[in-house]
Amino acid sequence: MERIPILRMGRILLVSIQVDMHDQLALTLQDDLTSRIVSDRARGVLIDISSLDVVDSFIGRMIGNIAAMSRVLDAQTVVVGMQPAVAITLVELGLVLEGVRTALNVEKGMALLQDATS
Amino acid sequence: MERIPILRMGRILLVSIQVDMHDQLALTLQDDLTSRIVSDRARGVLIDISSLDVVDSFIGRMIGNIAAMSRVLDAQTVVVGMQPAVAITLVELGLVLEGVRTALNVEKGMALLQDATS
Repeated sequence: MERIPILRMGRILLVSIQVDMHDQLALTLQDDLTSRIVSDRARGVLIDISSLDVVDSFIGRMIGNIAAMSRVLDAQTVVVGMQPAVAITLVELGLVLEGVRTALNVEKGMALLQDATS
Repeated sequence: MERIPILRMGRILLVSIQVDMHDQLALTLQDDLTSRIVSDRARGVLIDISSLDVVDSFIGRMIGNIAAMSRVLDAQTVVVGMQPAVAITLVELGLVLEGVRTALNVEKGMALLQDATS
């Protein structure tokens, strides 16, 4: 279980982060995700962080990096399921997640991506 | 991170199992999932096990239980992303997952559930 699975739904890739991220796992996720965006010709990436009670600057930066990589590969990133405490922490850490759109839940995030990429 | 998140997409609930299941986590998942089937009026449950390299009889039984509980709540269960080695182990363990349908990946599983529940 040394990878975070990437689930494909149409032209959208869904990543549900459920475990503590460490350096190697984050790097593997970035590699896997960029490869999959290209091979699956994905237009959107949906990252669910509803399991995360806390974030640190490492995860914040990782999300920002994934969004930036996706963007240069012509895919949009939407982060969904952010808990209120996580939003507070991100702002306090000064991580505004530039270029990352957010939505309340997976359903709303899918709708946002489908509108944006159709 | 003591819960497995349940993601809703329309009338379908998606569960991606990425961590080693232990008793308490499995019980919490069963509780959460049955509550969500009722509260979200879900018609289908999609369980992604693509991260699992190995299964034991505990996980096999848990999947069977979830399927049986969903069925009495009028929701169908589809398991997706099973790795070949996992299929071999399940059969060797004598766990045929009765009442559980399977599909290659999330996309095909969604299509199966949408056909079955429409």
